[in-house]
Amino acid sequence: MRASEDPATVVFEPDGNNAMVKQGLSLLDAALTAGNRIRSECGGNGKCGKCRVLVENQSALTGPTAHEARLISSQEADRGVRLACQARVKSSVVVLVPPESRVGQRKMQVTGDERPMVLDPTVRKISVVLPRPTLTDVKPDLERLTDALRDAHGLDGLGIDYDLLKRLPRVLREAGWEVTATVWDDARIIALEPGDTSASLFGAAVDLGTSKIVVHLVDLLTGETRGVGSVENPQIVYGEDLLTRVSYTVAEGGGLEVMQGQAVNGVNEALREACRGAGVDTASVYEAVVAGNTVMHHFLFGLEPRHLSVSPFTPAVKRALSTEAGRLGIDMNVGGIVGALPVVAGFVGADAVADILSSGVSESCEATLLLDVGTNTEIILSHSDGITSCSCASGPAFEGGHIRHGMKAVTGAIERVTLDPASHRATYETIGGVRPRGLCGSAMIDAVAELWRHGLIDGTGRFKQILDAQTLRLTDGKTEFVLVQEDESATGRDIVVTQRDVNEVQRAKAAIYAGCSLLLKRRQLADADIAGILVAGAFGRNLDPENAKTVGLVPDVPTDRIRFVGNAAITGAKMALASKKAREEAADLSKRVGYLELSADPLFGPEYASALFIPHRDPARFPTVKPG
Amino acid sequence: MRASEDPATVVFEPDGNNAMVKQGLSLLDAALTAGNRIRSECGGNGKCGKCRVLVENQSALTGPTAHEARLISSQEADRGVRLACQARVKSSVVVLVPPESRVGQRKMQVTGDERPMVLDPTVRKISVVLPRPTLTDVKPDLERLTDALRDAHGLDGLGIDYDLLKRLPRVLREAGWEVTATVWDDARIIALEPGDTSASLFGAAVDLGTSKIVVHLVDLLTGETRGVGSVENPQIVYGEDLLTRVSYTVAEGGGLEVMQGQAVNGVNEALREACRGAGVDTASVYEAVVAGNTVMHHFLFGLEPRHLSVSPFTPAVKRALSTEAGRLGIDMNVGGIVGALPVVAGFVGADAVADILSSGVSESCEATLLLDVGTNTEIILSHSDGITSCSCASGPAFEGGHIRHGMKAVTGAIERVTLDPASHRATYETIGGVRPRGLCGSAMIDAVAELWRHGLIDGTGRFKQILDAQTLRLTDGKTEFVLVQEDESATGRDIVVTQRDVNEVQRAKAAIYAGCSLLLKRRQLADADIAGILVAGAFGRNLDPENAKTVGLVPDVPTDRIRFVGNAAITGAKMALASKKAREEAADLSKRVGYLELSADPLFGPEYASALFIPHRDPARFPTVKPG
Repeated sequence: MRASEDPATVVFEPDGNNAMVKQGLSLLDAALTAGNRIRSECGGNGKCGKCRVLVENQSALTGPTAHEARLISSQEADRGVRLACQARVKSSVVVLVPPESRVGQRKMQVTGDERPMVLDPTVRKISVVLPRPTLTDVKPDLERLTDALRDAHGLDGLGIDYDLLKRLPRVLREAGWEVTATVWDDARIIALEPGDTSASLFGAAVDLGTSKIVVHLVDLLTGETRGVGSVENPQIVYGEDLLTRVSYTVAEGGGLEVMQGQAVNGVNEALREACRGAGVDTASVYEAVVAGNTVMHHFLFGLEPRHLSVSPFTPAVKRALSTEAGRLGIDMNVGGIVGALPVVAGFVGADAVADILSSGVSESCEATLLLDVGTNTEIILSHSDGITSCSCASGPAFEGGHIRHGMKAVTGAIERVTLDPASHRATYETIGGVRPRGLCGSAMIDAVAELWRHGLIDGTGRFKQILDAQTLRLTDGKTEFVLVQEDESATGRDIVVTQRDVNEVQRAKAAIYAGCSLLLKRRQLADADIAGILVAGAFGRNLDPENAKTVGLVPDVPTDRIRFVGNAAITGAKMALASKKAREEAADLSKRVGYLELSADPLFGPEYASALFIPHRDPARFPTVKPG
Repeated sequence: MRASEDPATVVFEPDGNNAMVKQGLSLLDAALTAGNRIRSECGGNGKCGKCRVLVENQSALTGPTAHEARLISSQEADRGVRLACQARVKSSVVVLVPPESRVGQRKMQVTGDERPMVLDPTVRKISVVLPRPTLTDVKPDLERLTDALRDAHGLDGLGIDYDLLKRLPRVLREAGWEVTATVWDDARIIALEPGDTSASLFGAAVDLGTSKIVVHLVDLLTGETRGVGSVENPQIVYGEDLLTRVSYTVAEGGGLEVMQGQAVNGVNEALREACRGAGVDTASVYEAVVAGNTVMHHFLFGLEPRHLSVSPFTPAVKRALSTEAGRLGIDMNVGGIVGALPVVAGFVGADAVADILSSGVSESCEATLLLDVGTNTEIILSHSDGITSCSCASGPAFEGGHIRHGMKAVTGAIERVTLDPASHRATYETIGGVRPRGLCGSAMIDAVAELWRHGLIDGTGRFKQILDAQTLRLTDGKTEFVLVQEDESATGRDIVVTQRDVNEVQRAKAAIYAGCSLLLKRRQLADADIAGILVAGAFGRNLDPENAKTVGLVPDVPTDRIRFVGNAAITGAKMALASKKAREEAADLSKRVGYLELSADPLFGPEYASALFIPHRDPARFPTVKPG
């Protein structure tokens, strides 16, 4: 046996997880094998620089790559900093994963504004006692059951799940002919249980997000939310953004099955958590309604997603989908139904339909903007003539991506920033009140707004001057603003906002503002016509509306017209779960909502370019926004 | 290694098949392993005595069992005759399988009387050319397809097979947006092919019998039958009769899956044969309609059959069933639909519904009896007030079971017998015109009728006198009638009709006659009211109507009112395949046809006892039947 073929042991500290791996494997893949989760927003392509790890014995690894040369400073390299996705194992090694590289527990927006609704779920339970068959009453089992359901509840022409039919004779006899049938949409028997179990009927509303998966467990007899579960989307190890994940399904044989499996795993984990909290058996969950963007929707149902990633970005299907839980592997009643809300277009998915449903914007006669901010931001404009939508690639900046010390809104993230007008020293609040590890999206907005307000950056976003090492300084020839000193941070390093970070925020906000602006323009509406702006998504929860206007993220309307609607997607999914009428409304919405493809609109480029300025190239667009 | 653990080689002559087997295995199982098919109507339980084989070196086998002592005469034992199911392998051995023990090619009744019908199949093909998606036309793939089908053919609200939806984006693009959709019941897209394939659309009508499986390949664009395939039901190695097979599913874990798999294999084999003959790819078959008795129907669909074998004999389902071919493993288009006609009751199955459908008895205002004779005989009485059915256990006598030299209607079977009035020597006809190997059912009827007609048996079926060694003789203390001398037979042995054989025929015909009689009685009808008797099934094809009356199998009506309708089941299946209206009629029939459970009728016992006589205990019932 040659030495180069010996397996190597890789230990990940501080957790102590370890794995025996083949030589040549990247530390990132070794971490996956060891069950250690390291951030890799770019999908392990050496681009995001989030997978920094510390290794003392560099001789156990392959040498630094060009990606590492670009993303790791010489001082850092001297300390043993490597990118886990680039460094490959040569022999056994101990790896330290610093806090900022670990996948943390995310701060979830799990409760949205709930609208009152009439409880009328699609699944219902009916308990019946059947007469036993005799030689003078030889009616077959299924007809014995359906006749009883018809006689007791007027349900005619009921079908039955084929797998259930196979077990029907046994179930009826073991139950002594006293059973509870679960009926879906008054059309099909999906489950059958011995005795009377009609007092227990649950459903799951699922927000299947790119980064997070949230499940609400709903008691369908009362409409109450009984439990909540949430997890990071496990697909994240295949790439932070959806296009990376779609590319994976194109490049790898069986890649779609992997993505589907990960989506199912994530839903199951969140669903189990929600059930555990409520003390409910997952087998008592008979329906799940899923809201998610179109790519996640395709992943979950195993639909070919590759055409969502290339122009003209065509989904496989628009209408609401449903299939048996057992067929997807969702851990609920095996005959239960997993349904997805319909989608509008490739970049305006079932989550946007859920947003519209729960926010009620479609019922307003006044012009209202609804933004669901994320890596892709969906923008909905409801007005007297109808509803139009668009989607813009706002990038991961507001979720911490492409930002030097950016991170998601999890414990340790700075979520609010203000600058002292005189000293320019920052004051901040962190999630969980602990020492800061980095900045989440709302803090980035605050920081950029404050830097501009206090004259530290100009309208193009450029830092104007160097001040001192505690605020605005030059490092490795580049300007950066110090938010937190190393002795205050959880990482032992300064937390800074770089010139590039400011530019990233500008690009993100410009895309969103340009989308809003074009939607309004195409409908001959001015900013003054906007009666309200609703912001949905985890990002929006801590967003300062004044700062959002200051950086030019949203049109300049009176601040009291800007409202955060929380996790509107899950609220919409819950409405569809609890009410047939809401579900019909969703179907109707998906047909009614128009779609504007920004990449096909010749005005988008100029609009975007003008919106890169803070707040805008044309200050007249933001009459109320002034430097401090 | 101990000597007792050495494997042994078993060679089956004259085919020369062989297998290495463990010691202790029965010769019957060894034959299965070697791919040699030996008859075993009782399922290898030592009861039917059909698996006789010859072995010279008896020391290579275990000794004779009690079953063998009962079924094998001392002379036969001296010649080395053994039952393959009883003799177990001790060491390597050569086994001769005589012709009468081999599973032969059965004479199939594959073409029934076909009624003219309007061609309107449930599956149809539609070819469409779709506009390619663009940035200004981003309609999702499924809606692009369904909108085109709606615009071209007015089909609205079409669903799609979930597995097909997963492949939809790829199929549409690989086809360059020109595709042919196969639509089922104007409701669901089940297949999608590149280009215009609308000129090729086939269906399969399947008669899934206890003993045989027949498939007709039908061109659904013309209604023509293009090919025929038929095989022995491969389940037969698990028992000739259905109750033995049901017991197997109860006794063995996974037994139902085995039976289902064998049914699927048999259908596939017959289907492939039908397609091969017509030069048609099995993937061009988009629908199969199956007619079969209720047990076979449960086996094919994997429905729990055990309750069909115990009182009150309740089926799992009555209505027509359908599921995807891919789900069952039927070798046709993977999205194709396999449907079963509805059933009436546990012993009156989809085959009987098909019989009624194709015979048109339900449309007659006059009283008509329809008999589908087999191990279980279904009897249908159609009359002015409605349709009633019953089933009687007529036993396997008419298919050669429980008859010393009985065999199925395959090559070498005697199918017609007459006796010379003076010499009492038999003259006979065989299937295929070859040397005789045994008697099939119609010959048994002929033989018993002739024996009674010529005064050799009395009304109780008892042989009256011994004549001579060439006709009626005593062997081992038992009377038997010699039909064929050893020098004329293919087996080198005399072919005889024993006292027990005559009694078996009496029991079978008595059950059928009692069923007919009770059905008529319960409807206040007399024999004189019967406008027609239709006999269906392979048995009926060569049945002499005069002899059928003489033995008392059917009521005494003028001979010209007795008609053979051939394989009415497959004709009914074809009608349902080719015409939606016929399918609706079948659904309606299954609801309308009443069922009389004979075992619950107190008159059945006395009726049966009286009918055991030839032609009947009460000669007034058979006024036209006289001894010759």
